[in-house]
Amino acid sequence: MSGSEAGGLDGIRAGILVTGSELLAGQVHDRNGPWVAQRLGALGVEVADVLVVGDRRDDLRAGLRFLADQRVELIVTSGGLGPTADDVTAEVVAGFAGVELALDPKLEERIAAILRRWATRTGFAGEALAAANRKQAYVPVGAHILEPVGTAPGLVVEVADGPVVLVLPGPPGELRRMWDAGLAAAPVHDLLARTAPFEQMHLRMFGLPESEIAQTLRDVGSSVEEFGVEVTTCLRRFELEVDLRYRPGSPGAARAAEELVAEIERRHARYLISRDGESTDALVARLLAGHRIGLAESCTGGLLAGRLTDRPGASEYVAGGVVAYSNQAKADLLGVPAELIEAHGAVSPQVARAMADGARERFSADIGAGITGVAGPGGGSKEKPVGYVCLCVTTSDGDVREAAPVLPGDRADIREQATHVAMHLIRRMLQGRS
Amino acid sequence: MSGSEAGGLDGIRAGILVTGSELLAGQVHDRNGPWVAQRLGALGVEVADVLVVGDRRDDLRAGLRFLADQRVELIVTSGGLGPTADDVTAEVVAGFAGVELALDPKLEERIAAILRRWATRTGFAGEALAAANRKQAYVPVGAHILEPVGTAPGLVVEVADGPVVLVLPGPPGELRRMWDAGLAAAPVHDLLARTAPFEQMHLRMFGLPESEIAQTLRDVGSSVEEFGVEVTTCLRRFELEVDLRYRPGSPGAARAAEELVAEIERRHARYLISRDGESTDALVARLLAGHRIGLAESCTGGLLAGRLTDRPGASEYVAGGVVAYSNQAKADLLGVPAELIEAHGAVSPQVARAMADGARERFSADIGAGITGVAGPGGGSKEKPVGYVCLCVTTSDGDVREAAPVLPGDRADIREQATHVAMHLIRRMLQGRS
Repeated sequence: MSGSEAGGLDGIRAGILVTGSELLAGQVHDRNGPWVAQRLGALGVEVADVLVVGDRRDDLRAGLRFLADQRVELIVTSGGLGPTADDVTAEVVAGFAGVELALDPKLEERIAAILRRWATRTGFAGEALAAANRKQAYVPVGAHILEPVGTAPGLVVEVADGPVVLVLPGPPGELRRMWDAGLAAAPVHDLLARTAPFEQMHLRMFGLPESEIAQTLRDVGSSVEEFGVEVTTCLRRFELEVDLRYRPGSPGAARAAEELVAEIERRHARYLISRDGESTDALVARLLAGHRIGLAESCTGGLLAGRLTDRPGASEYVAGGVVAYSNQAKADLLGVPAELIEAHGAVSPQVARAMADGARERFSADIGAGITGVAGPGGGSKEKPVGYVCLCVTTSDGDVREAAPVLPGDRADIREQATHVAMHLIRRMLQGRS
Repeated sequence: MSGSEAGGLDGIRAGILVTGSELLAGQVHDRNGPWVAQRLGALGVEVADVLVVGDRRDDLRAGLRFLADQRVELIVTSGGLGPTADDVTAEVVAGFAGVELALDPKLEERIAAILRRWATRTGFAGEALAAANRKQAYVPVGAHILEPVGTAPGLVVEVADGPVVLVLPGPPGELRRMWDAGLAAAPVHDLLARTAPFEQMHLRMFGLPESEIAQTLRDVGSSVEEFGVEVTTCLRRFELEVDLRYRPGSPGAARAAEELVAEIERRHARYLISRDGESTDALVARLLAGHRIGLAESCTGGLLAGRLTDRPGASEYVAGGVVAYSNQAKADLLGVPAELIEAHGAVSPQVARAMADGARERFSADIGAGITGVAGPGGGSKEKPVGYVCLCVTTSDGDVREAAPVLPGDRADIREQATHVAMHLIRRMLQGRS
């Protein structure tokens, strides 16, 4: 259900235009669209569309026109500012705004200075660099220039009777480092002054089917629309997210949203893992404070360790991990008895538990986690099919949590989901839930 | 540069329409757009646009119209087929095709059977499920129905004087499992009969700046356009990809493409790591055949192990890994002498090398890799700033490859790039390159 259909929200709408033929070939995932969308959303801007087009003048032009037709007042583009001939964003945006491209000699000199430093470091120089330099210094007449953080400048271009276009480079690191300067440029700054961040509420549930939340929303959710509260649900990685948002100051919205949240909590308390949108990773990190965990992974091959150490400060509670594919490594590094593997097989609840205990002891930790499974595509049997994963979390107090699901999908899916189940086993253990 | 601007390619164009308000909020990355794009590309379909819109009727409608205006003959949609009220794709596509939605009683019964099995397994049943069932059995009149792989059916809808619309569910696993059935449906099958896979060539380079390849393409690349050869370049994770593609049978295209590739090889041989688009991961896996590698990770916390074990059959050459954050774990599990850490610090080339040697020995491997660094955001110093990472690969023959870069970006960037540098160190070692 959508607040904009029900009553119309204030604030501004934006569109995101991502260019890159490699994105249309599916070789590369777009990292800029989601990042820009999240940043704009946090500022209270409603993102209407994210459009990915190839590095073709016609497609770029059509994309800009489409977004303008969606009544957006801001278009953010990413990509197409590089030195190669298929980088045509500056030229097409200039045409869209009805202005010429012109060489900015001062900008050319600043880019040249960047390139000289870079040439000194890498040993690349000469004609290729000079040509790249010149091309990247051609900008739409009247554009506000954002200083390069790589070698390409960003641009802010105002279209008469149309949107403001914020033109950013494609490499995600460059785009992010240029973001604040883009927001500070006068035309963007003036637009954003007309909006304010949404009030938001996020519920996160684990183990609840989407049909159940759909029923709850049918029963009690429709009444919130009339107050301009937008409700979205999203199921991913077994977690169900319910997000509510509304404009600050909308009459009755806060109360309506709170009542809906209270009803969801009343009906589905058992499945609720966070009331403030806190991610499972953040929650587990918080719960692990004051503990030390040791990890023993077979089929997930380090993914659980990689995920737990993703957060700053993880060294406080991640004591370490062992990736033990072979039986010998399980015995040598984790102390899993060879007889246990012989009796039950390397993929068994017994071995998962011995791995958890072994990791806990080897790393002098108070919590241990063990994962062993059949990630496939080979190695499955009738008894232990591909996707069968044994997980165990144990503590030095003798507490034990276990799971042995058969997970669907391909090797990557199985490994990812097994990591996810392990995160929830650790969470439940630390929350004292069964 | 683009073949379609130069000469026009045969074959068909497609657009992809991904729905999901959670994607516009940036909380979730779209996995369906890139996957569908890659599949279509492999079939020789040119993907013109990937458009992400929210779960709003107006935005969906506008998206369908925009794609139809781009002269696409096929539109693939993902998402919006679920049981909640914000799932409106079937309804909007029906409107776009000018037909009504109608309950399909037989489909309702088949979905009910799926839900009964599911209810038995999970214990969820009753009113919520029945309502979900009914909603998902409403389909556009005349649509070709794709049997549910979850609970939602897919659809193929023909639009008079317009594109064929292939409507697929949003959960990536469901979409993928329904894909073949979608291609086999008569309207899609007939369309695809009019195209053939592109001829493609992929070059992958490491360490070459984009400006250098831009110069080469300016010098010798423009001549290929007239033969309908499309050239795209993409820089990511320090790797530069150059892709060429053309329609099979285009006169002169094969020869023009080969000449361009030969010239790139001649100029940039030193940087070329693959001539057939083989990924670095596939290349390293191939080079590791017959070897066994042991891993010791500190700042990357298991990411290298996770990446190397991502491929089927990795257990043949990945002996195992240790994630050793603490000095004690480095000493206990990897045999890194405490004096070495004291003398040079935990983040030092000496410790990286001792970790590589230790992992190699502990896992009875012939190759060892060690990574220790400052991933940040804390822990940096003037001498060893955030981003400073020491990497070392050693062999039982006494061969050593080392690197100690200062990597840019945030914690996640640094960890990812360090993993990437490690992959290339392993590659160089195995290729006998310095």
